Amino acid sequence: MINNLLEELVLSLKKLPGVGNKTAQRLAMYLINMNKQEALQISDTIRKAVSNFQNCTTCNMLTDKDPCQLCSDEKRSDELLCVVETTQDILLIEKIHEFQGKYFVLNRLLSPIDGIGPEEIHFPKLKKLIRSRKIKEIILAISPSTEGETTINYIASNIQNDNIKITRLSTGLPFGGDIEYSSSLTLSNAFRRRYSVKD
Amino acid sequence: MINNLLEELVLSLKKLPGVGNKTAQRLAMYLINMNKQEALQISDTIRKAVSNFQNCTTCNMLTDKDPCQLCSDEKRSDELLCVVETTQDILLIEKIHEFQGKYFVLNRLLSPIDGIGPEEIHFPKLKKLIRSRKIKEIILAISPSTEGETTINYIASNIQNDNIKITRLSTGLPFGGDIEYSSSLTLSNAFRRRYSVKD
Repeated sequence: MINNLLEELVLSLKKLPGVGNKTAQRLAMYLINMNKQEALQISDTIRKAVSNFQNCTTCNMLTDKDPCQLCSDEKRSDELLCVVETTQDILLIEKIHEFQGKYFVLNRLLSPIDGIGPEEIHFPKLKKLIRSRKIKEIILAISPSTEGETTINYIASNIQNDNIKITRLSTGLPFGGDIEYSSSLTLSNAFRRRYSVKD
Repeated sequence: MINNLLEELVLSLKKLPGVGNKTAQRLAMYLINMNKQEALQISDTIRKAVSNFQNCTTCNMLTDKDPCQLCSDEKRSDELLCVVETTQDILLIEKIHEFQGKYFVLNRLLSPIDGIGPEEIHFPKLKKLIRSRKIKEIILAISPSTEGETTINYIASNIQNDNIKITRLSTGLPFGGDIEYSSSLTLSNAFRRRYSVKD
């Protein structure tokens, strides 16, 4: 690199996920080459979003209002609570228009080896939230990964309330997927959870 | 999108090359989720670089000094001029430590169909620069694409000065490449430009 300022920009951009040396260089060159107005606007939008976003004190979702627009939406039912790992997951679930309840974001998944215990996934806060509402169903919309399974099992076994149904997302073959390319874990799970075609 | 500010950030990031909807969303979530200090620093570095970079009035290279550090480097020879398409190309050539002359950036390649003529590739400025120096060789380090060939031919035939040698980069099979996967154009060119193994 023959220029310090450019090098600094490349190093900065490399902090983004999926951006290596080459991509960072390409992005940097593009930024200093593009319309100045537009490039500065990108910088400003990042600053504005980063400065304004924070975790909702009720559900932990990243939001620019507190409480967030979902927690404060009176049309959404307090009886349903969907527990997710990240704010991104909320956006994905909102897109399918299936769910009209409230959310709770764990931000992490349990991983005792990495020192991530119940405190880190905000479990005490989740319990408090559950006590404060008349909840009928808690949907654990958490990935079926190792940490995900640990988290699902921990939450399910530590919420002792017979009035609350605790569910998790269906597991099996993905639509459009191919049996040939499924892992044996997915396949054996799909076998065990098979259901009648006529249902 | 359930949030305007987030949507604005995603739209901004989508202006970057190679960043589609999904990547922009991932980057946006990452930015508002990461360490605030670091995220703001990315925004600031972009602003600083974008604000400070401009085209060198001598060679057109993007630089934060004018004249740029290469034009004002007295150790570099004025007798050699390397003509490139972009500032990025200069960085790549500097990396191989083969060249100790000066540069000139065209910023575009000739493409009459798209309305890119001699003015757009700064040819008048290049001619003036050539007249002002005692140049021995002009290296046209331009890609052997359709527009590149047009540009190389145009420049070579419009610089009438018998004291100046005009060269272009070697063309042929790329090192590590495979004859089987080379285009027939590359292969026929490599055939025509074959050279003695003992040279």
